[in-house]
Amino acid sequence: MPVSFPVANRTRDIAPFHVMELLARAQTLEATGRDIVHMEVGEPDFPTPDPIIRAGQAALAAGKTFYTPALGLPELRQAIADFYRTRYAVDVPARRIVVTAGASGALTIALACLTEPGSRWLLTDPGYPCNRHFIRAFEGEAVGIPVGTENNFQLTPAHVAQYWDGRTCGLITASPANPTGALLSAAEIADLADAVRRRSSKNGGHFLVDEIYHGLSYETDCPTALAAGEDIWVVNSFSKYFQMTGWRLGWLVVPEPYLRAVEKLAQNLFIAASTPAQYAALAAFQPETIAILEARRAILRERRDYLAPALEKLGFRLAAKPQGAFYLWCDCSALTDDSFKFATRLLEATGVAITPGLDFGRHQPERHVRFAYSTELDRLKEAVRRMGAYFATASGKAN
Amino acid sequence: MPVSFPVANRTRDIAPFHVMELLARAQTLEATGRDIVHMEVGEPDFPTPDPIIRAGQAALAAGKTFYTPALGLPELRQAIADFYRTRYAVDVPARRIVVTAGASGALTIALACLTEPGSRWLLTDPGYPCNRHFIRAFEGEAVGIPVGTENNFQLTPAHVAQYWDGRTCGLITASPANPTGALLSAAEIADLADAVRRRSSKNGGHFLVDEIYHGLSYETDCPTALAAGEDIWVVNSFSKYFQMTGWRLGWLVVPEPYLRAVEKLAQNLFIAASTPAQYAALAAFQPETIAILEARRAILRERRDYLAPALEKLGFRLAAKPQGAFYLWCDCSALTDDSFKFATRLLEATGVAITPGLDFGRHQPERHVRFAYSTELDRLKEAVRRMGAYFATASGKAN
Repeated sequence: MPVSFPVANRTRDIAPFHVMELLARAQTLEATGRDIVHMEVGEPDFPTPDPIIRAGQAALAAGKTFYTPALGLPELRQAIADFYRTRYAVDVPARRIVVTAGASGALTIALACLTEPGSRWLLTDPGYPCNRHFIRAFEGEAVGIPVGTENNFQLTPAHVAQYWDGRTCGLITASPANPTGALLSAAEIADLADAVRRRSSKNGGHFLVDEIYHGLSYETDCPTALAAGEDIWVVNSFSKYFQMTGWRLGWLVVPEPYLRAVEKLAQNLFIAASTPAQYAALAAFQPETIAILEARRAILRERRDYLAPALEKLGFRLAAKPQGAFYLWCDCSALTDDSFKFATRLLEATGVAITPGLDFGRHQPERHVRFAYSTELDRLKEAVRRMGAYFATASGKAN
Repeated sequence: MPVSFPVANRTRDIAPFHVMELLARAQTLEATGRDIVHMEVGEPDFPTPDPIIRAGQAALAAGKTFYTPALGLPELRQAIADFYRTRYAVDVPARRIVVTAGASGALTIALACLTEPGSRWLLTDPGYPCNRHFIRAFEGEAVGIPVGTENNFQLTPAHVAQYWDGRTCGLITASPANPTGALLSAAEIADLADAVRRRSSKNGGHFLVDEIYHGLSYETDCPTALAAGEDIWVVNSFSKYFQMTGWRLGWLVVPEPYLRAVEKLAQNLFIAASTPAQYAALAAFQPETIAILEARRAILRERRDYLAPALEKLGFRLAAKPQGAFYLWCDCSALTDDSFKFATRLLEATGVAITPGLDFGRHQPERHVRFAYSTELDRLKEAVRRMGAYFATASGKAN
C-alpha cells in the first residue's frame, strides 16, 4: 500500500449527504423493530406507472439491450420535444434535447462543458447540494447566494447585479426548488435571463434552470425557462413527476451552438443513457400514463394541504411558499437552535425522520429542516401525532 | 444569445469519436440500399442473455424502480465478490465493490477521486480513447506512452521508470486491451504494480486496471489485477462479457482507504446506478447464464480464428497478439500510408466499415486499423471476399 492515500483536493471539498447518517440510524432503529416515518427521502413513494413498466418489459423482450446513439434515442428526443409543444406550447427542436443518465448526467455534461477552472457559478443557498459539488468536480467555484422569505428563496436580478463579477460564468437555479418547493413565474425567469444576458462576457453568461420537479406543483403549472430564450440550458428528469427515479433517466436542453461540444462529452463520459429506460420512457407521455401521474399529483397536493398547517400548529414556520416538489422547508427556530441535533433527537424520541438544513447550504441551516411528503397521508398524520406528543413533554420542549 | 459561445477549455481538448463520421456515412449508404458489413462497432452483437432479461422483467414487475444505495445493491456487490472468489480464487470483500453506471461511471468516480489538476496519468498509446478524456475532464494530463509489437502493446516496468516524473499520479492500463486485444499475464501485472509502488509519492502512486473485456479471451483466462494487491483499482463492466451494453452497468473495485471518498462522489455525481439493471445483473452469474456466455465466447473465438489469418492473406499484419476482446489491431502499412482515408475508401468501395487508428491515440494511427469481429462469421467472410476483390483492382491497389 502507498504510505499515504492521496486524493484530489476536490474530493476533500465534496461533502457527503449528512442525512445519510440519520438514515443509517433510522435503519438501525427499524432493525430493532422501531416504526419509522420516513419524511427525509427525496424520492416519490409511488412506483413507476404501469404503462412505463410494461414498455420497459416489452423493450427487454424485443432485445433492446444495445447502445443507443450518445445523444439518445431519436424517437425519445422527439417525444420530449412534442411534450414541450403540447404541455407548454413551446417549440424546442428535438436536436436540442439530449437524453442523459438522470439529471445527474445532464448536470455533468452541462457543467463539464461550461466550467473553466476558477470560474464561478451563482446558486441559491439553500439549494440542491449536488450542484455545488458538480461545479467543484470540474474545478469551478459555487457562489451560494443567501435567499430567504423576502424573495421566496429564489434568485432575482438584484442578486445578479450584486454577485456577478469578472470570474462569474453563469447562474443556476431550480423551479420548483429543492429544498424549498418555491417556484419562479414566467416573468421572473425572463427577468433573470435578461439580467444574465446583460452580464454576459467572454467568460460566459450561462443560465441553467433545473426543472426536475416540473409537473409537481399545486397552485399553478410550472412555466419552463425554455420559453424565455434559446440561450437557456434546462435540466429535466424522468425521476420525479414521471416516477422513474431508479431508472436513471433525464434530459438536457442545449442551446444550439453547444450541441457539438455536448455530443463529444456525452460520447466520452457516458457512451449513452440506459437503453431499456429510454424505451420505457417512450410510454411516459401517453395519455394513460399522464392520467396516473395527475392522479398522483392530486394525492401529493392532499398531503401537502394536510401537512403544512399541521406543522404550523406544532410550532414550525413555513419558510418558503410550498408551491411545488414534495417538500416543506420549515423554520424550526421556535423549537430549537440546532436543527441537526433536533432532527437526531426527533428520530430517537419519535421515530420521525426528517432532513436537517445542513445538507442544503450554509445559510441558516441550523434553523431549518425539510419535510418530504413522499409518504402516505396516514403516516404523515402519525408523524404529526408523535411530534405533538413529544413537544408536549419536558425533553421535547428542551430541544 | 451571448455574443460569443464560450466553452471550457477541456471541451475544446476532448475529441469526438472520429469513427462516428464513418458510421454516419455507413448509415447514409445503408439508407440508399447498400449492404454494409459492420466491423467498426465496439459492442458484442449478441443480445443480453435471456436469464438476465427475465430477471430484469421480474424486477420491473415487482416494482424495483426506486433508488438503490449509492454504492449499489448489497446483494449485487456480494454476487460480484462471490464471482471473484469462484472464478478467480481471489478474495475481494463486497464492501470494496462499487456498482456504477457502466465502466464510464467507474472511470468518472476513480478519476474524479484521484486526479489533481495538472497531475499526470500514464497510459498506453494506442488505448481506449475515453481514458484520456476522463483525465482531461478533471484537469489532469494523459501521458500516452507509445507501445508496439516489442512489448505486445502493453506497458512495462521500464516504461514506468522512463515516464514517471514528479507530476505523475498513476498508471492506467487495460487487459484485454482495446484496440489491440493484448493481455497482461499475472506476473506482468504484479511487476507493473511493484514498479508503480516504487514510484509512489505524496502525489500518488495509483494503479488502475481496466478489466472490462475480462471473460473474452481465447488462449488463457484473464488474470485479475486484484490478485496483485489491495492497493489496485479495477474497473469492470457488465457490458462486454455479460453483453449488457445498453443497460449501462459496471463496477469499480476500490482500495479500502478510498471508500468514504468514493461513496461521497457516487452520492453526488450519480445518486446510484440503474435499479432494474442491478436486479437484472443478479442473474448474470447464474450457471445458466454463464453457459450461454461461454458458448458465445466459443463463437467469438471461431470468428477470430477465421478472420486473423484471412486478414493476413489480404496484406494486413496482425500488430498485436489477438488474445482477447473482439478486436484485431492490424498494421495496414502494406496497403496504405493513411488509415483514415483507407477506411473511408474501403467503406465507399466495398461497404466494409472498420475503425481507423485515429481514435486510439497519436502513435502511428495512420498505419493501423481496428477490425471488430462482433458480427457473424458469414458476414466476416463476405467482408473478406469484398476486400480481396477490391485490393485486386487498380483503385484498391492505389490506397
